[in-house]
Amino acid sequence: MTPVQTKALPAIWGFARSMIGRYRHEITTPALLLDLPVVRLNIERMAERMNGHARLRPHAKSHKCAQLARLQIAAGAIGLTAATVWEAAALAEAGVEDILIANEVVHDNKIFELTRTASRARVTVAVDDLNNARTLSDAATKANTRIGVLIDVDIGLRRCGVRSEGAACELALRVGRLLHLELRGVMGYEGHCALEPDRPLRERKTSEAMLKLAGAASAIRSAGLPVEVISAGGTGTYDLTGSYPGITEIQAGSYVFMDAARQDLVPEFALGLTVLSTVVSRQDDTLVVDAGKKTIGVDFALPRLVGVEAKTRYVSEEHTVFDVAPSCALVVGQPVEIVPGYCPTTINLHDVYHVIEDGKVVEIWPVFARGPGGGGPT
Amino acid sequence: MTPVQTKALPAIWGFARSMIGRYRHEITTPALLLDLPVVRLNIERMAERMNGHARLRPHAKSHKCAQLARLQIAAGAIGLTAATVWEAAALAEAGVEDILIANEVVHDNKIFELTRTASRARVTVAVDDLNNARTLSDAATKANTRIGVLIDVDIGLRRCGVRSEGAACELALRVGRLLHLELRGVMGYEGHCALEPDRPLRERKTSEAMLKLAGAASAIRSAGLPVEVISAGGTGTYDLTGSYPGITEIQAGSYVFMDAARQDLVPEFALGLTVLSTVVSRQDDTLVVDAGKKTIGVDFALPRLVGVEAKTRYVSEEHTVFDVAPSCALVVGQPVEIVPGYCPTTINLHDVYHVIEDGKVVEIWPVFARGPGGGGPT
Repeated sequence: MTPVQTKALPAIWGFARSMIGRYRHEITTPALLLDLPVVRLNIERMAERMNGHARLRPHAKSHKCAQLARLQIAAGAIGLTAATVWEAAALAEAGVEDILIANEVVHDNKIFELTRTASRARVTVAVDDLNNARTLSDAATKANTRIGVLIDVDIGLRRCGVRSEGAACELALRVGRLLHLELRGVMGYEGHCALEPDRPLRERKTSEAMLKLAGAASAIRSAGLPVEVISAGGTGTYDLTGSYPGITEIQAGSYVFMDAARQDLVPEFALGLTVLSTVVSRQDDTLVVDAGKKTIGVDFALPRLVGVEAKTRYVSEEHTVFDVAPSCALVVGQPVEIVPGYCPTTINLHDVYHVIEDGKVVEIWPVFARGPGGGGPT
Repeated sequence: MTPVQTKALPAIWGFARSMIGRYRHEITTPALLLDLPVVRLNIERMAERMNGHARLRPHAKSHKCAQLARLQIAAGAIGLTAATVWEAAALAEAGVEDILIANEVVHDNKIFELTRTASRARVTVAVDDLNNARTLSDAATKANTRIGVLIDVDIGLRRCGVRSEGAACELALRVGRLLHLELRGVMGYEGHCALEPDRPLRERKTSEAMLKLAGAASAIRSAGLPVEVISAGGTGTYDLTGSYPGITEIQAGSYVFMDAARQDLVPEFALGLTVLSTVVSRQDDTLVVDAGKKTIGVDFALPRLVGVEAKTRYVSEEHTVFDVAPSCALVVGQPVEIVPGYCPTTINLHDVYHVIEDGKVVEIWPVFARGPGGGGPT
């Protein structure tokens, strides 16, 4: 057991599990509700759509949940993507055998955890710096394990990643010579395209980004090095990247739940995640609920009230405030459900999912690797 | 022991405590650093400034920390303010004897926890709805305890709170007759003034808000009811509300730490909280660190890099991206410190504070009541 997994469980486990079999309105609010039939449908739908060259390696940062990772693997995913080494450790603990950390892993304590994880699962990590690669090589050698490497290429987001084909090629050549590292290919993330609401523009920007990624891959191949993996793709662009020639893996993750930010972009997936909340104040046209920024991710879009005619006025720490018509029948004490603005920054604010089927709690699933740093190595 | 307090401790406790005596750069990043001398100074400075009629009841939502609550009490605070019943329970567990929950408490499970807390500390809660007050009265009667009540008055934020003096008076009259509730006064929060950068405008808006609050208090007094408490005030307005005639209690809390959103508004307090982070990527003018929105609150202001000439470009889930000059000497692997955009939505993303003095970790303090719902009653 890694410290990551043991962290999540004892906290709320006993009490939360006592909710199994109860109706959703009995759950203490605010609480995360997972609509199991909808989530299963989203997972199946994505699996059906991944029928071309690219395979799905869904991103666990959007759910941080062992049970969901297993459902995705069962539906055909080739492995999982993680944002942090602590998510990777939790995925390995959950039995996932092939994990991509789509980020640079740098701090000594994290690299130590990386080697521990690499000793129990096939692990690949993003690299954009030679010194970091050398440190990874030293650690892998010391731990007598192997770490896969994708050269991280900036394809327009201007975050991590080398800035040119030449730099990608040079780094690949050097990484290829480092002991206990395995050069597996390239990755790039078109985060600057994924939320573009104009579909033709999204297509054009995504094509430009994939052209850069494919170019870096070609340059590395031309230098005689292997590129078995070309990884990209978010929920907003999965179909564009997934059908782009040469792309082998798609990292989309939020399709499992969806949220207010992506609902209109990819309407083929349904809303499977809400925050259960209670009306705590009603004054004329103002409705206030007991869930705010400490409960709901509001990146890229405001949260929405489910099934009620309401306009989201603003979100504060422990409240969301809605404009409602005077005729709105909601009063203090009633339960409501809220669609998060952005699901990846919602789930890390919660200890557990209340898994709902037919209006009742059927299971409690913990959220793993919530804390920053994840607790560090034991 | 309440479930709130037991939640925070086991998680990261053992590993975090092993950091005591170590240098800050040995801490696994991202991590919360608390500069103890600065925080002590901020607490002393606020205590010195509360020398008029109003007394300080600092808000625990900004720190969620038993040790800080005790330091504030030792410096003269009359009690603590809490945003949720779970924070109140944790404060009672920490030995705080007088607690104001400056919010409506509505859900049955939360009201049960409220009565438990009221049996071990003097507890006051905000009310803006008669049915909620009746439910509180029933629960307090059943638990054979007493709950104090402040009538919550909207003074311009348009969130919770009754909308007129007449409504405040009518609600007070009815609450005053409910068994096991004690009407103690009124509260209002001038949240719409607290971040106004133009000082004269901030003064004028705050005066208007306090006039409304004082008006509601007068109306209730005129009806022959007691108003021993008139509570208001945030860090951005503490000196204005604290000197307004009749205001008895100030709820300011973030002065303890400060953050990028308030640094220029109230420069008499110093920065006492940072997020320790590691440079994970450096490409030309782009510096990327391993702390993002899952680690740093970015409400109202972007985070800033400490002691480095850098412009914050954007914050994503696990990264913050900075523009730096080509001459910037920072490379991958180096530690940096980041001033959060907003401290109350930073601390709930962390398990513990690394308490720093003379560059070393001297103590580890847990963050309490992190989870939404706080785990519910046992």
